[in-house]
Formats: sequence, structure tokens, C-alpha cells
Amino acid sequence: MLFLTRRFSFSASHRLHSDAIGAAENACAYGICENIHGHNYRLEVTVAGEPDPKTGFFCNVMELHRVVDELVVKPSDHHHLNDVPLYAGAITTMEGLSQRIWAAIEPALYAQRMRLTEVLLAETDEHWVRLRKD
Amino acid sequence: MLFLTRRFSFSASHRLHSDAIGAAENACAYGICENIHGHNYRLEVTVAGEPDPKTGFFCNVMELHRVVDELVVKPSDHHHLNDVPLYAGAITTMEGLSQRIWAAIEPALYAQRMRLTEVLLAETDEHWVRLRKD
Amino acid sequence: MLFLTRRFSFSASHRLHSDAIGAAENACAYGICENIHGHNYRLEVTVAGEPDPKTGFFCNVMELHRVVDELVVKPSDHHHLNDVPLYAGAITTMEGLSQRIWAAIEPALYAQRMRLTEVLLAETDEHWVRLRKD
Amino acid sequence: MLFLTRRFSFSASHRLHSDAIGAAENACAYGICENIHGHNYRLEVTVAGEPDPKTGFFCNVMELHRVVDELVVKPSDHHHLNDVPLYAGAITTMEGLSQRIWAAIEPALYAQRMRLTEVLLAETDEHWVRLRKD
Amino acid sequence: MLFLTRRFSFSASHRLHSDAIGAAENACAYGICENIHGHNYRLEVTVAGEPDPKTGFFCNVMELHRVVDELVVKPSDHHHLNDVPLYAGAITTMEGLSQRIWAAIEPALYAQRMRLTEVLLAETDEHWVRLRKD
Amino acid sequence: MLFLTRRFSFSASHRLHSDAIGAAENACAYGICENIHGHNYRLEVTVAGEPDPKTGFFCNVMELHRVVDELVVKPSDHHHLNDVPLYAGAITTMEGLSQRIWAAIEPALYAQRMRLTEVLLAETDEHWVRLRKD
Repeated sequence: MLFLTRRFSFSASHRLHSDAIGAAENACAYGICENIHGHNYRLEVTVAGEPDPKTGFFCNVMELHRVVDELVVKPSDHHHLNDVPLYAGAITTMEGLSQRIWAAIEPALYAQRMRLTEVLLAETDEHWVRLRKD
Repeated sequence: MLFLTRRFSFSASHRLHSDAIGAAENACAYGICENIHGHNYRLEVTVAGEPDPKTGFFCNVMELHRVVDELVVKPSDHHHLNDVPLYAGAITTMEGLSQRIWAAIEPALYAQRMRLTEVLLAETDEHWVRLRKD
Repeated sequence: MLFLTRRFSFSASHRLHSDAIGAAENACAYGICENIHGHNYRLEVTVAGEPDPKTGFFCNVMELHRVVDELVVKPSDHHHLNDVPLYAGAITTMEGLSQRIWAAIEPALYAQRMRLTEVLLAETDEHWVRLRKD
Repeated sequence: MLFLTRRFSFSASHRLHSDAIGAAENACAYGICENIHGHNYRLEVTVAGEPDPKTGFFCNVMELHRVVDELVVKPSDHHHLNDVPLYAGAITTMEGLSQRIWAAIEPALYAQRMRLTEVLLAETDEHWVRLRKD
Repeated sequence: MLFLTRRFSFSASHRLHSDAIGAAENACAYGICENIHGHNYRLEVTVAGEPDPKTGFFCNVMELHRVVDELVVKPSDHHHLNDVPLYAGAITTMEGLSQRIWAAIEPALYAQRMRLTEVLLAETDEHWVRLRKD
Repeated sequence: MLFLTRRFSFSASHRLHSDAIGAAENACAYGICENIHGHNYRLEVTVAGEPDPKTGFFCNVMELHRVVDELVVKPSDHHHLNDVPLYAGAITTMEGLSQRIWAAIEPALYAQRMRLTEVLLAETDEHWVRLRKD
């Protein structure tokens, strides 16, 4: 099985806050992350497939780039994620963001005959989440 | 399936030597790695789970940090690994160390409702081992 | 001449805006950086000196860490830099931030007998500024 | 299950061109990548196995290094990949190169009792492919 | 004194060969680097100046980007450097390339009121050259 | 002025201890660094010069590699630095090590017509020292 991964990045601000819990629980769950702050996010998108024998590519990497850039990177880069429609109603943890990213790009990639298998989202080089579908 | 990974590091010395084989075989198997030497080890711990809808986190990353820091990083950092109780009786290859690390943290993470799925241990940026349980 | 450098990082949000120019000029000067967004800032502080022959250290690296952590990293990390007193009245470009950082830490380092020679501040791995005093 | 990964690199030039399609389609598929250009390739080879209880190693990492160095790195490093026999007839995309690398090293590693599970090939830090056999 | 550095990269091929010496001396001086091969070059350009009090920038970083992109990156990226007019007649060592880059961008940066102080060019992460004018 | 830098690395153990001060002062100065532990050291050596117009190189980078490898890297790699003759009598801080490295390589580089201008030694990615002679 062949996988292709492409890395993206965007600089954005966010704050962690949940409407489902009270002020004290918010303070307890998020600590200083309730303050508005920001990251250089790293996003790695992996698709699986078979190379086309005529071109040696198994997917058009430019299409992969275009889909993720338009649906995720441009709306997120240099914005405040809590205000971005893509993440409306979500808690802007890496978990919450990556689920919205998956939902946004999977059908668009599928329409270009690319099967999404992993979304990795990192706030820093010290921790990250991966959503995977084997 | 959602995975969260957190990276740790510790500086430690070790020497490779096996009591199960003779001096000549030790020299042959380990070469200059029989000398005492050291590394900045990189440790990446991955857990799997489902986000809590109230907080958007699927595990308490601070608990993950605390467990690995107390059980592995603090006892290993700035110590000689061949003398650390956690690795007593093990050969201090990356293979041997990572198995002890897995055994130490898996029950503690489970007690905090985190399912351990991968331990990656790297002596350098050039080579590393991963223990994985799918 | 011997120099010691220590690296710090903090995650923060900011927006670029100058009260000295009008809306059109702000838009022209800063583009999408007028939007609130954020970075994982990297800060490298360099001091010069001579090693103490008794300890082999030329400065107490823990003091260097404490000074920069208290005066810069803690007030900045997970905050909106435009609201942080350390940067009050400054435009929060890397140029503006680094000048405030220099002014804040130089006397405190000097009081610990460390001579500050360089402050490097990076918004991303692609560009950074350095303030230097030879 | 235990995996060991070792990283290699080589600097080489290539150009993307397919004999199966015409000039216009080549221009469309590859753009400026039809020009001769080059990369510092990063290659990561992963093998799976069980550690030998006598040595604590599950494979002889020096043998892994020797096999990949002789069969892939030396023939590729500082060469024009379109002229290298290992890739004869292949389109020198990352997809095409990685399949040839897999075919070359799998039997040689198997002869040394190492089971190949992944070949990762990166042209840049921004995109890479992985061939995987679970 | 304030310095701003911006990092660029380009993928290109080259071969080392000098018309001033014979075949044997070329083989001796360059070894396998006489073969056509390639790199992901890293280029870091540093300018010095004083921030404009109205904008907080000491130079227009977009102009810096535009100058280097047009004069160096675009003509070099995905090309064979021995055939690029910018390097005509030069030996394409890092030393030779960096001197041409300096000569090309210094007047254009000066015309935008930026004083060039350093050009760093790296073929790999293991070695690089710097041209500096204090 | 043209500078060439080459990066080296070695894995070694050390412990910090000074014979010039008592046990309590050693504990106070070095803390847990009095324990034997280790690092992947990064060493960057910079020389200055003028390129030879015939070859385009300003120094023979292979000679630079050979000198540093023989005089520093081989004696240090996979050894306990407190026992290595190169560092005999020195306190094995980065400051102490870098001064010995400078003294060892400067005459050997000079004999090959290379003028040493900087030695950078890093225990980790978080802190490092530089010895510089302008």
C-alpha cells in the first residue's frame, strides 16, 4: 500500500473554552489556555492509493495541495480559530480542530479520487494528535 | 480513531553488555558501544481514545505528562541507565529500554483511562525503535 | 571570547497595527497581519563572559534562565502580546518586541554579572530578527 | 510488535518525464519538474522483528545499514537518478523510486532475517511517500 | 544594531568542474561531485537597519522577499545551476554561488534602503558558507 | 569575508565535578549534573578564508573534516569525556570542552592554511556555547 503525505502550516490564535461546563470547570480543564494565544500549527495530510502507470503519481499532489489549502489553510492562517466558520461550535483543541479538518477535506479529496487515511495536527513540536482510518 | 502523542527527552549514559555471552561475543555484538557513552534520548508516547464532548480533550494530557515524567523521565534523566532500577537486568539497547518503559507506563495510563498504543525511543535522529500494539 | 546562548519559546497571539498611521496605511503595511493571529515564538538570548576557573562555568545558566523566564517568557506565554504591559505602546513586530525584551533583561542580567550581546526573536523558522551589541 | 527504523540520505538530481504520454501531457503533469533539478532525499527504512534475548537487539543494525547503503544509497548519491540502473524504466517520482527501493532491499534484508515493513522517501520536508506492508 | 534574516530554499542540480584545471585535477578536487547531482539549498539573507518608528518594521520584509525571490530563487529553483545565467562562468561551489547571489541582490536591496550584511548558503544541514560584510 | 562551517556530532558521557571546590560547593554548582550522564553533542567548526580561483573552494573541506574527526570526534565519540586525554584536567562543561577543542584543532587547521574563527558546542538544542576570535 502506498501513502503520500504533505505538510502544511498556518499561524493562528485560539482560546480553549467549553460552553458545556461552568467557569470553574473551564479554568480547571484549560488553565492558561483559556487566554487567547497562538501557534504555528503543523498539519500533515496522508492519502492512500495506487500510482497511475502513465505518470508515476498515484494522485495529483497539486490537487491535494489545492484542496487542503483552500478548505483549511487559507481560512485558518492569520485568523482567530474560534471565529472561523470551519470550527464553529467546536472546542478548538487539537482534537476538535482535526475532526473538523477531516470532515471538510475527506469528501473533496474523494471527489478527486484520493482516499484520506490520516490527519496529524500539531500545536507544537512537543505534542500532536492524529486521526486515522485504516 | 484518535491518537495523541507527546514527546519527552532525557540525557543519560549507558553501555551495551550482555551477561549471556562471553567477552569476545560482547565485543563482536556491540563494538565501541560497550564503552560507556550517552545520548539525548527522545521518547514519544502515543495513546488512543475518544474525545470527551464536554472538554474537547480525549485524555488529560497533563496526566499523560505526569505519568511518563514520574515513571520514566525523572528516574532516567542525568543517570547511568545500567544502574537505574527501571532497567535492572535488561540490556540497555533501545529495544530493551522501550520494553521496560512500556511495562512501566501501560498500567498507570490505563488507570487514568488512556490506552497506550505506541512507544517510540530514539538514541539519535538517525535511528529509533517503536513498540506498537494495534 | 566565550558566548553562551539559551533558547526559550512561548506561544502567543498578536496583531500588527500602528496608531501613527491611518487605516489605509495600516492595511498596506501589515496586510493580513492586521488580523489577530499567533506564533510559537522562539527566543535565543546570548551573553558573553569568561569562565570561572573554579567551576568551569562563565555564568550561572540557571540565573540566565530565571531572569528571561520571569521577565519575558511567563508574561508573554499564552497571552495576547498587544495587551501585555512589557510591550505597552510598542508595535508588536519582531523588531518592536525584541527591543522591549532587550531593555527588560539587560539590567537584570548585568546585576547577575552577565553581559547581554544578542537577542534573537523568531516568529517562524522562515524569518527572525537579531538585536546585537558587539 | 517491535520496529526499528534507520534514516539515510542522498543528494541526487532527477527530472520527471513519462514516455507513455506526449509532450503536452508531460508538461501538464510535471510542470517545472520536467526540468532537471535535485534534492537531498531522506530515506527511512523500517524492519519488524523480535529482539534476540542474548544481545537485546532484534536485528543487526549494521547489516541493515550495509544492505541499504550498498543497494540504494551508494548507487543514488551524487548521481542523476534517471540514469541509475536501479531506476531504469521507472518514472523518478517518489512513488516510482520507492517501489524500486523496496524491490531491491526486501530480499537482501530477508536473507539477513529482517522483515521489511516500511520505506519512507522524502524529496523535501514538505512531502513524502510511504510504502507499507502490514 | 538590528538585523533581519529571511530563509529561502530551492531545489536544483549542479556539478563541480573547473575549466582552469585539467581532468585529473578536476577528479582530485571534486571527486563524485563532478557528477551531476542536486540539493535542497537553504539560503538565509540578513539585512541591517533601524526600525521605522511609524510601522515598527526596519525594512519591508515583503520587498526583501520579492528581491531575493526574483533575482535568485526563481532563476535557480528546479534548474541546473551550471546552466543558469546568474552563475555563468562561476564554479558552482557554495563559495562561487554565494558570491554571485551577493552581487545580484546587494544593489537591489540597497535601492530599497536595505543594507545587506550576510548571505548564508547551505547544500545540506552538515555544511554551509557565509559571506559577511560587517 | 567568506566563512565555511561544518557540523559534527558525537555521543558521549560526562559528569561535572571540580577539584577546586568542596563537596557541598560541587553539589550546589552542578546539581544532578554531578551524576554521570550523556549527550548527543553537536559541534560546529567555522573557518575563514578566500576561495582559490582555480577550484572555487577556499579550503579543502575534506581536510577540515579529517582534522576535526581525528582530533576531536573519534577520541570523544562513545567515550566518557572525563577519561579522555584531550580533556584531562578540564571541567567537562561546554565551556571547558570547547576551549580544549579550540586548542587542539587551531594549529592543525592553520597547518592546512585554514584560519579558525568559531567553535560552537551544544549539549542539547536548548543551550550552547561559542568560542569566537574575530
